[in-house]
Amino acid sequence: LILSLKPNMTENGLGHRERVLNVDTMNPNVKRIEYAVRGPIVQRAVQIEKELKEGVKKPFTEVIKANIGDAHAMGQKPITFFRQVIALCVYPDLLEDDKFPEDAKNRAWRILQACGGGSLGAYSASSGIEVIRQDVAKYIEKRDSGIPSNPDDIYLSTGASDAIVTMLKLLTSGEGKTRTGVMISIPQYPLYSAALAELAAVQISYYLDEDKCWSLDVSELRRAVKAAREHCNPRALCIINPGNPTGQVQNRQCIEDVIRFAAEEHLFLMADEVYQDNVYMEGCQFHSFKKVLFEMGSEYSSVVELASFHSTSKCYMGECGFRGGYMEVINMDPEVKLQLTKLVSVQLCPSITGQALLDLVVNPPQPDEPSYATFIKERTANLHILSEKAKMTEQVLNTIPGIHCNPVQGAMYTFPRLTLPEKAINAAKAPDMFYCMKLLEEMGICLVPGSGFGQRDGTYHFRMTILPATEKLKIVLEKIREFHKRFTEEFS
Amino acid sequence: LILSLKPNMTENGLGHRERVLNVDTMNPNVKRIEYAVRGPIVQRAVQIEKELKEGVKKPFTEVIKANIGDAHAMGQKPITFFRQVIALCVYPDLLEDDKFPEDAKNRAWRILQACGGGSLGAYSASSGIEVIRQDVAKYIEKRDSGIPSNPDDIYLSTGASDAIVTMLKLLTSGEGKTRTGVMISIPQYPLYSAALAELAAVQISYYLDEDKCWSLDVSELRRAVKAAREHCNPRALCIINPGNPTGQVQNRQCIEDVIRFAAEEHLFLMADEVYQDNVYMEGCQFHSFKKVLFEMGSEYSSVVELASFHSTSKCYMGECGFRGGYMEVINMDPEVKLQLTKLVSVQLCPSITGQALLDLVVNPPQPDEPSYATFIKERTANLHILSEKAKMTEQVLNTIPGIHCNPVQGAMYTFPRLTLPEKAINAAKAPDMFYCMKLLEEMGICLVPGSGFGQRDGTYHFRMTILPATEKLKIVLEKIREFHKRFTEEFS
Repeated sequence: LILSLKPNMTENGLGHRERVLNVDTMNPNVKRIEYAVRGPIVQRAVQIEKELKEGVKKPFTEVIKANIGDAHAMGQKPITFFRQVIALCVYPDLLEDDKFPEDAKNRAWRILQACGGGSLGAYSASSGIEVIRQDVAKYIEKRDSGIPSNPDDIYLSTGASDAIVTMLKLLTSGEGKTRTGVMISIPQYPLYSAALAELAAVQISYYLDEDKCWSLDVSELRRAVKAAREHCNPRALCIINPGNPTGQVQNRQCIEDVIRFAAEEHLFLMADEVYQDNVYMEGCQFHSFKKVLFEMGSEYSSVVELASFHSTSKCYMGECGFRGGYMEVINMDPEVKLQLTKLVSVQLCPSITGQALLDLVVNPPQPDEPSYATFIKERTANLHILSEKAKMTEQVLNTIPGIHCNPVQGAMYTFPRLTLPEKAINAAKAPDMFYCMKLLEEMGICLVPGSGFGQRDGTYHFRMTILPATEKLKIVLEKIREFHKRFTEEFS
Repeated sequence: LILSLKPNMTENGLGHRERVLNVDTMNPNVKRIEYAVRGPIVQRAVQIEKELKEGVKKPFTEVIKANIGDAHAMGQKPITFFRQVIALCVYPDLLEDDKFPEDAKNRAWRILQACGGGSLGAYSASSGIEVIRQDVAKYIEKRDSGIPSNPDDIYLSTGASDAIVTMLKLLTSGEGKTRTGVMISIPQYPLYSAALAELAAVQISYYLDEDKCWSLDVSELRRAVKAAREHCNPRALCIINPGNPTGQVQNRQCIEDVIRFAAEEHLFLMADEVYQDNVYMEGCQFHSFKKVLFEMGSEYSSVVELASFHSTSKCYMGECGFRGGYMEVINMDPEVKLQLTKLVSVQLCPSITGQALLDLVVNPPQPDEPSYATFIKERTANLHILSEKAKMTEQVLNTIPGIHCNPVQGAMYTFPRLTLPEKAINAAKAPDMFYCMKLLEEMGICLVPGSGFGQRDGTYHFRMTILPATEKLKIVLEKIREFHKRFTEEFS
């Protein structure tokens, strides 16, 4: 052993040397990632919960987490039929059990027949179980008033996040001024900025109009893409509708305008539509990009490239933990589809329980089936409660001096604007982070600062979910009122 | 609209233009990926199955797939206890059901208590449910004769593949001659080459010694790393033990040598140990890299950086579809750990059903529990059958003139060497691909050509799993015998 010849070794052996993997040598793109939804505030919240358990005294007895769209964690109950079918699939001995309704058994049997060896334990095709991709296509056709959907355009995924990252990965190429640029809204869901940082793609920010209920104005898209063409190659436009973190629902006209813009500017469209059932405001309606695109006629529908995303995690079911999702790709180059299939095959397949759950979401009980009535009752109740909470959140927040909140038209969040005293703004590098951390420490309320989603310079926000149970949500809103008043006085 | 000013548009509107995303504009790293385990042979096998269903006549009535380590698809039954507990977790109403044993109920109750809102539908911490990480740490301690394991070093994952790609991602940096190089065995499991291609990291190949039962010789590692230092920055060494696709089990001495080599050469060690229960050959034993590292004393155990990987997909349970897995990181820089936690948080969390199943793998029924006897019976039977099939595969293949097969000491595969006639070698660009495709078309047997895993120039192999049910495996082996004879005659 000639240790002295080896790098980073002392003459005495292996001691006192730098690690192979340290912050200086690690992937610099990973370092650039930010993901506030699980950032420092949330980490501190987990710590505080531990301290409370250990008996540390706080001005509150529990931490209420309104930082993440996690419905079951906030007490929402699963849809009975969905869980019955999955339990039957997991443990098929239950198919003999009289306690399960026939439609649940039929559904489980059908899914198991489509699994290798009749077991959820087998891998599926990498793009997902074929029967389920067919069911997804039928669901899309029904949703979109009969516009055809091809199962070969459906790729099942591990939640929507996985599929979104996969699409961004396919789109990223070039160096310097030819590097792929991707347009994302500000505020945005930070998965997008994180994925672009990891891929070293260029983030092109376009701002939603807070004064017009976070609507999207095509002139702002034009401004953003024009400026970006100076330093990168804009190739994709991402839209989240209904909006996260901003809760707006896009109207049909706006979607048409966006599609026309994408066509003119030669951009690949990515439509994140995971909140498609979460529309609360009267007069608002969900329009899928796919449907609008095809209704605009073949001049558009034959050329505009679109990937749209859905998931089991949101809507009325909130089954985040199952990590089910899909994307539909429209007008994708057939050779790129082969490359996509190859790319997803490296990770073998999405979780089969997630795939099975997705199958139930796209193919729920039908009116002539025994589980229909209960299913409808549960779905309606979940959506109704969300709708009530959306209204309550907006109403209460708007009665607090120094907080302004747009209507929560859809999704699961509000992104209210905070008027902060000058002293607080000058005292903290990130005033909204400072605000949220103080809110957590003093009130036990866990929110995410607006800076984690992006906001216009000099404006401050937080994102709050509407998911806590009604009584808890009331407490959250009253605590925010009390805190905001105190904070404003303290720094005035 | 000034259409003529926009790129890629005709004066007549949007028609006749190139797609935004095509094979020329897509991510070039993705194009470079190869993944033969689900490559053209497997795609053709799926097609042939469809043709058979449609009544197309073939010289066989079914395709037998021995291309992928997918035990349940090949008829292996799930472990009863595992599925009982998961069904209870999915549909907790069953906790009232007398048909389920008490220990299954207790286990389900414990897992549900650790889930947000007591539901598998909630997200977990991104590194996994804390209770499960504690159980993993206890499992590792027990496996490794008491060497401590810290739950904070455990990251649950979506199968082992996910964690392996995450580690490679962290390790990748630099450009040109400073670009990260990663040492992988040849033959290798193509996840590694695929991930390195995607990350544009440099693959450093070291060859296993086929003449010595695919053993690893440190002098070959030295040769490979020395050559690589000319053109990249070697930073990691990946080992698969027991071996995929080669089925060897490393002895303790060899593992020590590898650790010493990694220490001297300042390399991060990645130990893929997903087949740790799959050891069949008398005299062979699984030694974890972690255990050997700590038994070598603090000179090594305090400095060598190691990530080791495990999964629910292999061993006696074969629960691939649940996508459960974990990695343990040793001596990882604390700041890098924070970056790792941030990186995994972008995808929110691994599937909760996968996490729950992993919990059962690391914490199976204990001797005083009602499910113990059945569990042990099922586990023993599964491992015994695999062991029989490993022996049978080796024995039969070695009776075929022109095929030479090393002992299948462990894992689930054999990688026999084929003597092919000159004419066949000269006729085909990839002779083993040609061979496997012909075998599929003529015999209905689906294997993966050796070129998909890497092999020494001028040698030819295939990878075959030992997973088909015993009677089917006999058919597979006899069909290979018949085909190999015919192929040799045809091209002689």
